[in-house]
Amino acid sequence: MKVEGKDMKALWFEKNQIKFIDQRKLPYNLEYFTAKNVEECAFAIKDMVVRGAPAIGATAVYGMVLGAKDLERTGKILSKTRPTAYDLFYAIEYMKKQIKNGEKPLDAANRYVDDIVDRCRRIGVHGEKLIKNNMKILTHCNAGALATVDYGTALAPFYIAHRKSKKFFVYADETRPRCQGLLTDWELEQEGIPHAVIADNAAGHFMKKGDIDMVITGADRIVANGDFANKIGTYEKAVLAYENNIPFYVAAPISTIDKSIKSGNEIIIEERGREELSKINNCKIMPDWTKVKNPAFDVTPNKYVKGYITEDGILDKIL
Amino acid sequence: MKVEGKDMKALWFEKNQIKFIDQRKLPYNLEYFTAKNVEECAFAIKDMVVRGAPAIGATAVYGMVLGAKDLERTGKILSKTRPTAYDLFYAIEYMKKQIKNGEKPLDAANRYVDDIVDRCRRIGVHGEKLIKNNMKILTHCNAGALATVDYGTALAPFYIAHRKSKKFFVYADETRPRCQGLLTDWELEQEGIPHAVIADNAAGHFMKKGDIDMVITGADRIVANGDFANKIGTYEKAVLAYENNIPFYVAAPISTIDKSIKSGNEIIIEERGREELSKINNCKIMPDWTKVKNPAFDVTPNKYVKGYITEDGILDKIL
Repeated sequence: MKVEGKDMKALWFEKNQIKFIDQRKLPYNLEYFTAKNVEECAFAIKDMVVRGAPAIGATAVYGMVLGAKDLERTGKILSKTRPTAYDLFYAIEYMKKQIKNGEKPLDAANRYVDDIVDRCRRIGVHGEKLIKNNMKILTHCNAGALATVDYGTALAPFYIAHRKSKKFFVYADETRPRCQGLLTDWELEQEGIPHAVIADNAAGHFMKKGDIDMVITGADRIVANGDFANKIGTYEKAVLAYENNIPFYVAAPISTIDKSIKSGNEIIIEERGREELSKINNCKIMPDWTKVKNPAFDVTPNKYVKGYITEDGILDKIL
Repeated sequence: MKVEGKDMKALWFEKNQIKFIDQRKLPYNLEYFTAKNVEECAFAIKDMVVRGAPAIGATAVYGMVLGAKDLERTGKILSKTRPTAYDLFYAIEYMKKQIKNGEKPLDAANRYVDDIVDRCRRIGVHGEKLIKNNMKILTHCNAGALATVDYGTALAPFYIAHRKSKKFFVYADETRPRCQGLLTDWELEQEGIPHAVIADNAAGHFMKKGDIDMVITGADRIVANGDFANKIGTYEKAVLAYENNIPFYVAAPISTIDKSIKSGNEIIIEERGREELSKINNCKIMPDWTKVKNPAFDVTPNKYVKGYITEDGILDKIL
């Protein structure tokens, strides 16, 4: 990804330190955060200096490098940071295994991170073929480089297409409640890809007007029948796309596919706290007495999905 | 409408003054605004102390009472406040005509306002029949008492049903960009009607889960074939309701129907400024460089509408 004109990643290892773009400060300010030891690395995950499951996994492998002298202790500290990202625990175990097998810690960590980035790049290479000149494309939430070290998933096709000088325009849903659309806005602005942020309510209007030719989103989990869970609002946009005959694509690495779950009905949706809705950027936008319901994700049935963009190609169905 | 337990209206005439609930301060603070002369009345409209076309019309007739000594001058001052609300100009002309015909200014004004309120009440009486015990009902934006002096349009059935002791639950869409869902929240909280505010993105999720039994919204304009314009996002929620077999009703007075326009495709949609998206409650939530597109309204085709709740009954089609 480009940051102020330079090629950069969401995080990297340099002189025995982990360097991060501080995502707590985005999109308002570009600042960096440095983790010099395991404790500071754990803080970066816990305090959301870094976010997105693949980027958290990358942080963890580098954290294991910093704490390679006592892998058990390091793994314990890192695993207590955030409970739900599967990548975090996978990354810790991966490092233990590789080091036990004699691989140098930094080599193992770099290989892990390079693999994530390469899978995202390949998602971009496959997805890029769907982008024609002058297309207008909608995305929801932020499935970008910030969440995956580089390229992202839903945004990877945009990066590859832009570097091939294709001309297209991106509509970025604001993505209430947490407004991750502003991270997408920041990434696309840095890259110089023409785009605008819209209220989530406006996506349907632009589809009906014929102003949107394709939709690409990420996925948190894709199950055996092709139903998938993603940020709240994804289901709405998928139904609207279907109703308006607009192809809707999901971009995600193969590791996102969980065949142990048969259908989306079995996915349990996390209900999160009211402050995500009642505050934005530390600013109170709702009175104290306002009651909210705040489901964080929704499930989109497979019938609304035109294809799944993976690192191994575009699948039209999962089963 | 109830305000702190007392019956109240959005505005009223008292001791030769117009009194308003100051809507600039809601939902955060309940304050009142007094207009003692024509200039203060014009300020109230212009500065959005009062909003909603019917409530603006009511303000104008009382403004004509305050400035009855020179109706031409008063009409000119009031007509320069906000350009688009048809009710404003209609109200000014109505008062000129009635006073010319010998009616006392305050009598004519009160009759005008009583008529608005009575039409809304009748919308409520008809719409109430659709509400069954234990229903969960979604509404979008604020088509409530604040916008129409009393009762509202979409909210009128809720008020009547609540006073008949029916039990039901209201989901109020936040309604970005301007968050008028918080005005709905305020009204329902004052009335004691159980409800919660949800992100606009979550409405589809609740529909799919079976948590929403009916949708009622207002309309800014209904055209000859039954297509209607309303707050941005209404179209999305109507498509989602249709897809999930949930009845979608539009509540509006007959005066909202504009048969001079044949189909919704002819309605021109106003694009508004970026600050509606980039700031909430005077708090900046987007960086200065973020580009936005901000359509204020959308058009919902008649096929998604189960019925039109008017003061004369529930119509299943307009033509």
